[in-house]
Amino acid sequence: MQFEVERIIRTALEEDIGLGDVTTEVTVSADSTARAELVAKEDFILAGIDVAAEVFRLLDSEVKFEKIFVDGQPVHKGDVVAWLKGKSSVLLRGERVALNLLQRMSGIASLTARYVAEVDGTRATIVDTRKTVPGLRALDKYAVRMGGGRNHRIGLFDGVLIKENHIAAAGGITAAISRAKKQLPHTLKIEIETQNLTEVEEALQAGADIIMLDNMTLYDMRQGVDLIAGRALVEASGGVNLERVREIAETGVDIISVGELTHSVKAADISLLFC
Amino acid sequence: MQFEVERIIRTALEEDIGLGDVTTEVTVSADSTARAELVAKEDFILAGIDVAAEVFRLLDSEVKFEKIFVDGQPVHKGDVVAWLKGKSSVLLRGERVALNLLQRMSGIASLTARYVAEVDGTRATIVDTRKTVPGLRALDKYAVRMGGGRNHRIGLFDGVLIKENHIAAAGGITAAISRAKKQLPHTLKIEIETQNLTEVEEALQAGADIIMLDNMTLYDMRQGVDLIAGRALVEASGGVNLERVREIAETGVDIISVGELTHSVKAADISLLFC
Amino acid sequence: MQFEVERIIRTALEEDIGLGDVTTEVTVSADSTARAELVAKEDFILAGIDVAAEVFRLLDSEVKFEKIFVDGQPVHKGDVVAWLKGKSSVLLRGERVALNLLQRMSGIASLTARYVAEVDGTRATIVDTRKTVPGLRALDKYAVRMGGGRNHRIGLFDGVLIKENHIAAAGGITAAISRAKKQLPHTLKIEIETQNLTEVEEALQAGADIIMLDNMTLYDMRQGVDLIAGRALVEASGGVNLERVREIAETGVDIISVGELTHSVKAADISLLFC
Amino acid sequence: MQFEVERIIRTALEEDIGLGDVTTEVTVSADSTARAELVAKEDFILAGIDVAAEVFRLLDSEVKFEKIFVDGQPVHKGDVVAWLKGKSSVLLRGERVALNLLQRMSGIASLTARYVAEVDGTRATIVDTRKTVPGLRALDKYAVRMGGGRNHRIGLFDGVLIKENHIAAAGGITAAISRAKKQLPHTLKIEIETQNLTEVEEALQAGADIIMLDNMTLYDMRQGVDLIAGRALVEASGGVNLERVREIAETGVDIISVGELTHSVKAADISLLFC
Amino acid sequence: MQFEVERIIRTALEEDIGLGDVTTEVTVSADSTARAELVAKEDFILAGIDVAAEVFRLLDSEVKFEKIFVDGQPVHKGDVVAWLKGKSSVLLRGERVALNLLQRMSGIASLTARYVAEVDGTRATIVDTRKTVPGLRALDKYAVRMGGGRNHRIGLFDGVLIKENHIAAAGGITAAISRAKKQLPHTLKIEIETQNLTEVEEALQAGADIIMLDNMTLYDMRQGVDLIAGRALVEASGGVNLERVREIAETGVDIISVGELTHSVKAADISLLFC
Amino acid sequence: MQFEVERIIRTALEEDIGLGDVTTEVTVSADSTARAELVAKEDFILAGIDVAAEVFRLLDSEVKFEKIFVDGQPVHKGDVVAWLKGKSSVLLRGERVALNLLQRMSGIASLTARYVAEVDGTRATIVDTRKTVPGLRALDKYAVRMGGGRNHRIGLFDGVLIKENHIAAAGGITAAISRAKKQLPHTLKIEIETQNLTEVEEALQAGADIIMLDNMTLYDMRQGVDLIAGRALVEASGGVNLERVREIAETGVDIISVGELTHSVKAADISLLFC
Repeated sequence: MQFEVERIIRTALEEDIGLGDVTTEVTVSADSTARAELVAKEDFILAGIDVAAEVFRLLDSEVKFEKIFVDGQPVHKGDVVAWLKGKSSVLLRGERVALNLLQRMSGIASLTARYVAEVDGTRATIVDTRKTVPGLRALDKYAVRMGGGRNHRIGLFDGVLIKENHIAAAGGITAAISRAKKQLPHTLKIEIETQNLTEVEEALQAGADIIMLDNMTLYDMRQGVDLIAGRALVEASGGVNLERVREIAETGVDIISVGELTHSVKAADISLLFC
Repeated sequence: MQFEVERIIRTALEEDIGLGDVTTEVTVSADSTARAELVAKEDFILAGIDVAAEVFRLLDSEVKFEKIFVDGQPVHKGDVVAWLKGKSSVLLRGERVALNLLQRMSGIASLTARYVAEVDGTRATIVDTRKTVPGLRALDKYAVRMGGGRNHRIGLFDGVLIKENHIAAAGGITAAISRAKKQLPHTLKIEIETQNLTEVEEALQAGADIIMLDNMTLYDMRQGVDLIAGRALVEASGGVNLERVREIAETGVDIISVGELTHSVKAADISLLFC
Repeated sequence: MQFEVERIIRTALEEDIGLGDVTTEVTVSADSTARAELVAKEDFILAGIDVAAEVFRLLDSEVKFEKIFVDGQPVHKGDVVAWLKGKSSVLLRGERVALNLLQRMSGIASLTARYVAEVDGTRATIVDTRKTVPGLRALDKYAVRMGGGRNHRIGLFDGVLIKENHIAAAGGITAAISRAKKQLPHTLKIEIETQNLTEVEEALQAGADIIMLDNMTLYDMRQGVDLIAGRALVEASGGVNLERVREIAETGVDIISVGELTHSVKAADISLLFC
Repeated sequence: MQFEVERIIRTALEEDIGLGDVTTEVTVSADSTARAELVAKEDFILAGIDVAAEVFRLLDSEVKFEKIFVDGQPVHKGDVVAWLKGKSSVLLRGERVALNLLQRMSGIASLTARYVAEVDGTRATIVDTRKTVPGLRALDKYAVRMGGGRNHRIGLFDGVLIKENHIAAAGGITAAISRAKKQLPHTLKIEIETQNLTEVEEALQAGADIIMLDNMTLYDMRQGVDLIAGRALVEASGGVNLERVREIAETGVDIISVGELTHSVKAADISLLFC
Repeated sequence: MQFEVERIIRTALEEDIGLGDVTTEVTVSADSTARAELVAKEDFILAGIDVAAEVFRLLDSEVKFEKIFVDGQPVHKGDVVAWLKGKSSVLLRGERVALNLLQRMSGIASLTARYVAEVDGTRATIVDTRKTVPGLRALDKYAVRMGGGRNHRIGLFDGVLIKENHIAAAGGITAAISRAKKQLPHTLKIEIETQNLTEVEEALQAGADIIMLDNMTLYDMRQGVDLIAGRALVEASGGVNLERVREIAETGVDIISVGELTHSVKAADISLLFC
Repeated sequence: MQFEVERIIRTALEEDIGLGDVTTEVTVSADSTARAELVAKEDFILAGIDVAAEVFRLLDSEVKFEKIFVDGQPVHKGDVVAWLKGKSSVLLRGERVALNLLQRMSGIASLTARYVAEVDGTRATIVDTRKTVPGLRALDKYAVRMGGGRNHRIGLFDGVLIKENHIAAAGGITAAISRAKKQLPHTLKIEIETQNLTEVEEALQAGADIIMLDNMTLYDMRQGVDLIAGRALVEASGGVNLERVREIAETGVDIISVGELTHSVKAADISLLFC
């Protein structure tokens, strides 16, 4: 994902710096150097520290960036996450972009970790969705993994998820699955969305690899899990939040997908302090 | 901002669709058409409806997209925001990207509107910061305007904000402002960050156009406003939230900048329903 | 794959035309128009006709392009595949790029169709590999489908194929599969390469979804198919050619992957004739 | 051609790796290193060894790549062409792209060398055409040179070749050449396509620098060569293959252009073996 | 050159407009329309009128742009060159970029026309050099043609010009030409720079197609022309200006190359007037 | 502006070199090295020396480039501005692009310096306009600063300049300024164009930060300066040339904007000499 990360950072730097940091140019001498620290202002799970480092490296390969924590580790208020040393003008130019990325990614990892903790001891795995910020999917999905979650498909190209509209267009669940089996790369599993147990039954017969229980009651989810009985993976989806996720996990589903992980993120509070 | 919006949407579509929507390709016939509606699942301020339209237009210029609400309007749960008509495969391919953008932008507008409502009747204006999602600044800042806020500078290139580190590097407030006055385009105002009333006094003497009161107490803010007495614009910054913003506004500051508007957004709940 | 096809064509046109078609500029008047036909000079399976149309459309949206055959159809020597009408200068500028793409794609489809015909009546499916021409994978893989084949994974990102070096690095087949199961998106199947029946047995126990029999003898392939007995998909790979493919198919494997389909293509013979 | 090669490789790597090599990520530890060899599995003329090296260098500048053979040299089955050392994950990610480029380029060089050998002792030079794979022309044409051939014009922008349609549009051979002489950069030679000896005669009178004998019989070619008698370069074109090329060369033409060199390439058989 | 022109204009518009025309956004209503004229404020030769039209078309395909003069025509002070009609905001956004391009191109055409007039009646042709503004070569060279000049090679890739340093590196004029003849595409002429008549003689013997007389006296140029006697094209180069060009032309050289045409351009005076 | 400079140089190198420097490839051996000097052929103010260095660095990071003068310094005929050492082929490939940029930038700086000298002792500052060469604005504006001038706004996005057409559209000066004050980022000053003293008076009342006196007589300018009396910055614009600029400055205006600085540049005469 190297080229993708580089693209994201360059776009962000061009967006923020444009033809120049006019303030720094007139107040800071070109050859002054500084030392700074990335400091946690609250507790969170770290994600994006190498991305932050890359921001400064792209501006100036001479900047020294030393991480003290690595992605996936819990960080506590007051911890120094990393320190850097380089030209003052470079640190000032990269500061905002590095923080914007690091704070969002750590926010995602932290929220994911809370979901993962909630379902601890059940068989359920927390996964993300395609409800990511446009242009940042690679980083959003990476941050979910750093929080202990797993990824659902990346996009429309690397996974099959047959939804209601596809089913209607194909003329039913059986027809849809059968077409998919005949035409798709044999390396992809076939997932289908179901609204009720009758559909679950049909999907199972048609040979679905993964059955999504969409917006079902806890009772129906339990029935669904019993019915499927290990013959397909079971994914719960729709209306998942921190309050309900434990109950959903206890129905026995394999996978719980959570849009909130990436579409409603609270940035972790992190500062860059010059010292 | 036309080219920038096009860049954002293309990047998002390439990220999500890649070499193809494998599910749709095998279940939906290439020439089937559909009608769909964008429906509000909660109350919010709309922002991004033209961006959503552009997503579908870029995929297929034949898609019909009719808006019922325009950006800046309040929308209520159950309202149909827009309807579209076109090839089923196109609607399915564009759905997620259009929603991801529209939901984030409407989330920003809605949060901004709450801040604006809080300070109603005071002289204070709510503005955003550079704490936007990398790559989406143009849309984030537009959404703030749709929520009734105003924009701070776009990036480092179009505004001068002399912060602590710049002041230290330049050898003091007076020196920093004086250098800026001599070298910068005469079209830009000069803003400087201050930590206490002594600094406010110095900034005023040095001829700052805008004085930022950074993380000050309400008491100090009031003193600052009195001291400045209209000779410069006054901006309050740091630790602003919905609970405190009214009190801050009542100190008499002109501008209140709020990072949360764009760095911690809750997506508005919107669905695309085929009908 | 719309944006990808556009990228391919633009790159090809810029490469071929650069700052201008100097010959046409001095010999053909800017407003002269012409009618031309794409004519088959031998028998082949057509693939890429819409790509050819798009070449001319990108140069000038006014060009009329009418297809007489569609992708996937067999075409015979002398058949007119499509006709076009437009500015002479545009037809001359687009001719070579359109033919280069159409001839290669039809060459791939035709070769694939020969393989598919060879295995007719067996359970085997012919699939491609990642041995495509750099930059043209989307078109190469599309052409394979038009010839009646199916696609293997598109790239390293959308499918798991654990090869010898991965197995060695992971510490054995069981360890490799187990790690993959725990960390990968649940939507992807896990394929593993095996060199002999002992490895087949281990892969099966470890829960592989697809087992590749790499460069095995026909005898071993038959043994492998018996051993696996439907509990995983079986893919034959290595040293496949038109002479051997039937025998391989008759061992009972599900999938036969053929590098030659895309790495050693003979262009179909097609001309653009002005009339 | 440095930037062009870089563009080709980046496109190829992005196409193949996308957001990541999911197999390697879960089976190979990030810091394991490996040594590997590029080994010839058949005899061929090497072309593209520096391009292969650049593939790995773009992924990771730390990879060591040592060539044992250089472009243009004959390589025999079993020869080690180059060896590399670096992170296992990097070698695995770059392997396919490096091989796809190297195998195609060596295939082109090898085929070219056979044509060159066929015409040995005659005055004829073997040249390529614009029938290259879209996006790879720079590499295709370089490989032809490595096989001992020479290049025809690169594209429509750097050479003048007046074909039948141009002649018709300009109102005859004399008119076409005369217009070209007046308007074109004086640095370009003017080549014109002829169908028979009358046209050859007219082209000569009009001052063509190069006369192409298009799809003529051996008898007519000989007559053409005699008629031209050194007053212009003579190029034979159309229907050239390995069986006929010697006879064509013996007619005395200066140049023989061969589309097959780049439009119907058999990849040279090369493997990357970890050791 | 269609894609190149589009690239130039897009770059220019992004550079000038960035995230928006803040003045127009707050003063001009989005749906107001206007009519405007491009008016000549002095006499000049027009070049770039279609480029100017394309600027507005790229911003908004609805703008009507009607040319009254075409490229290459002389325009007089007060003449209306074209008129446009469209959204006021679009006309205001495109104005500066359209004028910057049109004024530069017309400036080049006008200067070229003065040189061409100076050499009227001689055999000399005025050509440009590679001393163009980086990024604009396609337009600069086009403007030279509109002024009645011809183009030298476009870049390093489409023409051979062996200069002093090449000669030294190759070991002399004869060696350099001989190598070039053996390796280069047969479609390119070979030009060589000479400093004196001895070198001219050697270049002629070695078979140069074009001989450049570099910074020679008028006397030596005349000698050179006599010596060459039509066996190669003769190009005069170095220190050419409007005062000297006639004398140079009268020495009998075929080609005079003039750097000033593109490196020291005075913009033609043109205004966009709203009416 | 780092990424912007890189973009400009890459575009220029691709434009000039394309698929290769065919002359150098056949005459200069790949491993020969050379030493060269950038030499002033006339007096000028240097600008762009780091840009020239970057040209060679982008081609080959091994090139040594040592500057003897820095940007902003006066250079005299015969001075060696910098020397370089590296592969001959790299120096030859970069030569033209480096010179084209350096000569233009030094030309701009030199012309600016003459204007600045003319107004010496007055309060007036010389500034540039948006009349720059498309794609090179960053460099053009930098060169103005090196000549001792200051920059006006960079583009439409970072400054407000309300012109006649905006005023008409908004319904008058007062309305236009009032709208701008309410909606624009508070960090931007508001500049307005005036045609006569009545308009100056209205602009002043409405609270303009900068008042442009457009094409006024010297008499009116003096009146305007008196009327404004320091309550706004005063900018003179229109018809400024070296003959008139002193008189304009003596009217007491703060700012004089000069289009000629960037739209009609005479390249400084600089050569790259191999030694």
